[in-house]
Amino acid sequence: MKLLYPTSVKLDVQSLQGFSVSLHPYDVKSSIPEEHVDAEILVTWANSSDNLKDAAQRLKNLKWIQSLAAGPNDVLSAGFDASAIVVTTGVGLHDYPVAEHTLGLLLNGARHFYEMRDYQLQSKWPGHLGGSFPRSDFTTLRGSRVLIWGYGSIAKTLTPYLTALGANVRGIARSQGVRNGVEVYAEDKLPELLPETDALVMILPGSDSTINALNAERLKLLPKHAWVVNVGRGVSVDEDALADALEKGEIAGAALDVFKEEPLPESSRLWKTPNLIISPHAAGGRPQGCEGLIADNLRRFLAGQQLKNVI
Amino acid sequence: MKLLYPTSVKLDVQSLQGFSVSLHPYDVKSSIPEEHVDAEILVTWANSSDNLKDAAQRLKNLKWIQSLAAGPNDVLSAGFDASAIVVTTGVGLHDYPVAEHTLGLLLNGARHFYEMRDYQLQSKWPGHLGGSFPRSDFTTLRGSRVLIWGYGSIAKTLTPYLTALGANVRGIARSQGVRNGVEVYAEDKLPELLPETDALVMILPGSDSTINALNAERLKLLPKHAWVVNVGRGVSVDEDALADALEKGEIAGAALDVFKEEPLPESSRLWKTPNLIISPHAAGGRPQGCEGLIADNLRRFLAGQQLKNVI
Repeated sequence: MKLLYPTSVKLDVQSLQGFSVSLHPYDVKSSIPEEHVDAEILVTWANSSDNLKDAAQRLKNLKWIQSLAAGPNDVLSAGFDASAIVVTTGVGLHDYPVAEHTLGLLLNGARHFYEMRDYQLQSKWPGHLGGSFPRSDFTTLRGSRVLIWGYGSIAKTLTPYLTALGANVRGIARSQGVRNGVEVYAEDKLPELLPETDALVMILPGSDSTINALNAERLKLLPKHAWVVNVGRGVSVDEDALADALEKGEIAGAALDVFKEEPLPESSRLWKTPNLIISPHAAGGRPQGCEGLIADNLRRFLAGQQLKNVI
Repeated sequence: MKLLYPTSVKLDVQSLQGFSVSLHPYDVKSSIPEEHVDAEILVTWANSSDNLKDAAQRLKNLKWIQSLAAGPNDVLSAGFDASAIVVTTGVGLHDYPVAEHTLGLLLNGARHFYEMRDYQLQSKWPGHLGGSFPRSDFTTLRGSRVLIWGYGSIAKTLTPYLTALGANVRGIARSQGVRNGVEVYAEDKLPELLPETDALVMILPGSDSTINALNAERLKLLPKHAWVVNVGRGVSVDEDALADALEKGEIAGAALDVFKEEPLPESSRLWKTPNLIISPHAAGGRPQGCEGLIADNLRRFLAGQQLKNVI
């Protein structure tokens, strides 16, 4: 049995040893070498689309792909034989980095660090950005109302950061209920919840059902002082509607880490949209605890048991 | 008995009623009106230095000044009669805002939001700022070693934010001991602690004994990947030594909210120093719970008891 692991992320290979499986590194930006096309298991991280398309054609023995991404759209669209190959995701490996990045983006919104930077580049002191400037009611997380749309494992990690700072957190997910002490509502409650939101955090996966989930109509339900942060997938936000809302001052600001097209093209209007913070899909990108997940799934795979994070 | 309160901060005056004291608003940027120079109590916030100098000359009955600032250097240098007038500070009113701002600055350092902004202004996608880029070892608070120099009430508020994110926090103060579960050392331990620090947070008060506390010699003890954040007082950092260290790459970055001269003059080299984030003394500026402190001290004053926060 042969497992190919990517060199695009630092892995402690010793933590994968002890199974009757040979472990081989591979370059995610090139074709898989001929001597390894017999591999049964492929671990992926930041592979080029050419690499994946090529692998889909040539790895005839492939049984299982372990992606280290939370949403492995790249693997799913590469042409692998879905009837023969199980795909597992890296859900959970990005919870801490993404949650921390999200908090950073929220604080950039509340504290206007991005605007301070603009002044700094002109050697100008923006004294008006101190104190409780009147332009926005969202100047602190303390006492603020944060709504997390897409209340999964990242949201569960993010929530205690926000509550430590004094924020009131509510969630939206497919099914309602109380999770880790947080009231989570179904999407049909959005018309009631959005007007009571100071900061909307979007952590929706990319899928047909999430396309333009945040559209013009829903943006209009947010208060004028509200901020929007998206760290899920770019498809979930109608980018033109968001830019319109920001230009018209219908909401106070937005911070996007994900976009419909990445890298964001130089011609995009988003670069110059006022009070929009652009983060280059940098929230994750630092998977943590990969070895544990791979080893656990490898054991399950060899034992013929159900894998974790099956898509 | 007459108390003058400033209109420079929103106060719920009803929460100050019930004492045998008349309450009068005043403008902190003008002279005190002639009919109010008989006031015994003056509350100050963001007063102009002309206002304070004038008040020091004309308010002959003054017995007590309640500043809402944590470090009321403005009041102390205005020429009030120190033998007749007690000054109390707003220590504690700024703990939450300053702690939150400090966390935001730390995350800007770890996540390089300031650098993303520079790219955004050029419509350029800084893909290299995602993931665990090699330039710095301080890319997350998780597992990082944060040393807070000046372990007082702001530090006590900040610590749980940092530990919620997974940071390891230690403190430096005049006297050593364990405070709120955090190991706090005296300054003589700096030579041991600085080399083990990923992020140094300075919250020292402004006084003769803190001038240039962070000097060239101590900067050299920090690891190359370390960040420095100063939200205390500008005097405590040797700004030229810090700029030198940043230009030479001896430390990874710094975020300053306070400066020796404020507003920072346009000619300052700090505006253009690489990996330096300039925040315009904006960490505080949003005192919280003023009415509670004023009312408590007013009661004590009228009862002839010891005031809180006497300087």
